Amino acid sequence: MRAVTIRDKKITVEEHPDPEPGSGEILVRVRAAGINGADMMQRAGMYPAPPGSPQDIPGLELAGEVVGLGPGASRFAEGDRVMSIVGGGGQAELATVHERQAMRVPDALDWPAAGGTPEVFTTAHDAIFTQAGLRPGERLLVHGAAGGVGTAAVQLGADAGARVTATVRRAEARDAVAALGAHQVLDPEGFEEHGPFDVILELVGAPNLGQNLKAIATQGRIVVIGIGAGAKGELNLRDLMTKRATLRASTLRARPLEEKALTARAMERHVLPLFESGALRVPVAETHPLDRAEEAYDRFAEGGKVGKIVLVANDG
Amino acid sequence: MRAVTIRDKKITVEEHPDPEPGSGEILVRVRAAGINGADMMQRAGMYPAPPGSPQDIPGLELAGEVVGLGPGASRFAEGDRVMSIVGGGGQAELATVHERQAMRVPDALDWPAAGGTPEVFTTAHDAIFTQAGLRPGERLLVHGAAGGVGTAAVQLGADAGARVTATVRRAEARDAVAALGAHQVLDPEGFEEHGPFDVILELVGAPNLGQNLKAIATQGRIVVIGIGAGAKGELNLRDLMTKRATLRASTLRARPLEEKALTARAMERHVLPLFESGALRVPVAETHPLDRAEEAYDRFAEGGKVGKIVLVANDG
Repeated sequence: MRAVTIRDKKITVEEHPDPEPGSGEILVRVRAAGINGADMMQRAGMYPAPPGSPQDIPGLELAGEVVGLGPGASRFAEGDRVMSIVGGGGQAELATVHERQAMRVPDALDWPAAGGTPEVFTTAHDAIFTQAGLRPGERLLVHGAAGGVGTAAVQLGADAGARVTATVRRAEARDAVAALGAHQVLDPEGFEEHGPFDVILELVGAPNLGQNLKAIATQGRIVVIGIGAGAKGELNLRDLMTKRATLRASTLRARPLEEKALTARAMERHVLPLFESGALRVPVAETHPLDRAEEAYDRFAEGGKVGKIVLVANDG
Repeated sequence: MRAVTIRDKKITVEEHPDPEPGSGEILVRVRAAGINGADMMQRAGMYPAPPGSPQDIPGLELAGEVVGLGPGASRFAEGDRVMSIVGGGGQAELATVHERQAMRVPDALDWPAAGGTPEVFTTAHDAIFTQAGLRPGERLLVHGAAGGVGTAAVQLGADAGARVTATVRRAEARDAVAALGAHQVLDPEGFEEHGPFDVILELVGAPNLGQNLKAIATQGRIVVIGIGAGAKGELNLRDLMTKRATLRASTLRARPLEEKALTARAMERHVLPLFESGALRVPVAETHPLDRAEEAYDRFAEGGKVGKIVLVANDG
């Protein structure tokens, strides 16, 4: 099979041996696989794949058809449309996935949308509901809301009856974020004057830490998922005490199978029906054939888009 | 009535008008009232009492007999032995308390023990169970374990089936903390080599922040209740993400009545029966008559004791 390959911090597309599904795994013919910030970090040598995942083939999510079943696999049949987060190896013609980690693709999603769904929606759902416990009527602030996880979080929060405020640095992206359901879209500068917020989803990094503590409501929850703008910052514990607030941080990729499978069950229960009903959509900015992955990575690195960049099978 | 009084950052004992119980309140003839770190901060002018509490009479906890009932108060009868946290004003001959905030005194507790119980046991119970969600079999680390909240947390954690590690700076206090049920008592220096810990109760402050992130287990919870050694420190969000950990902070005093009442219900359900059964004890280091409060405050400030310093009624 052909697969995107990281070699000397560069993106190429190379031939690899076809993977074989192990116990409880399914073999998927990949039709679409989104590019994420983590892939860019992995290309730069900063974010190695977890043990058990292909080390040189990037890709944290995929969608495609089941074309093989490993011993004991019984949740899906050959021909089923599935999508999944994976520890790596998603950007290839074939990939193996544990069946407990995979989800069926809602009919409402075409291949590019399905390939760009698992990573960002699972991350956003886990962060704002499982970790922050967002409840209807609460005030949610999403930093970096024009990105993949941000656009998912804005939609999920608004659908759940939260009042959603989004910060977006690029002025030209703000209308698109408002169209996803954000009640208020702000420049990041001075956002703390628009609080308090019960939940803050931090997708930017440590530079927001001090203002987040000013903007958080009493008993509020700050969840840090992205630290692209910096990991280290000064924390004033007195502010955290006064607000009786919670600061959590998380990653999805490093979790063991059983925890990733739990996120897939949460997605099936809460999120997939919202795609079927049309309440949620997956903004796809661009698609590129697998063989032109380098070009797609360069486009991702440029930034400036609202929506996913997705690699699609060479034969469409 | 006579009451401890803060005047120009000094402790005196002065005559005040007798308080009158308002709607839903009880009037308590105070028999014992513990001294806490917060009283020392209030004496220094750094920690004003919340609105609605006496501003110049310190004291965050008390035990005594009910001697009057305000309109609608029905949970207790005159003569009942009660104890309670209060927003201030506990160190006096008489005090009013909302009946929803008060608890009956277990028969196993004499007055000095009862007067030293509410603040530290409520704080410790709320922190390690309500906030950190400590479960049986988990590993609990208590920093500053020789203090009032620390000795309560060590006992509560051990009784709940957690494996308790305590850090205690003064070598001479370590045996006393081990006798309360800590499975391991350490010098704070190098504690992070003894982890991982599922729950860390931070009673010292920001200087432990970096090592706490090294010592916390995956999905662990750090709860900050005391910051006497400093409030500000550098936080590495990448460490917090890698551990998928939670950092929370809290205070008891600033909470509204309904939340304080909830802590009293949690105490009645879980903690008071443990006093009755003898599973918990309240270490009382010294008692001083109310009229000699200044001396008692000086002793508290000296440090070096394991157990509470409690003011008792002048007539015993």
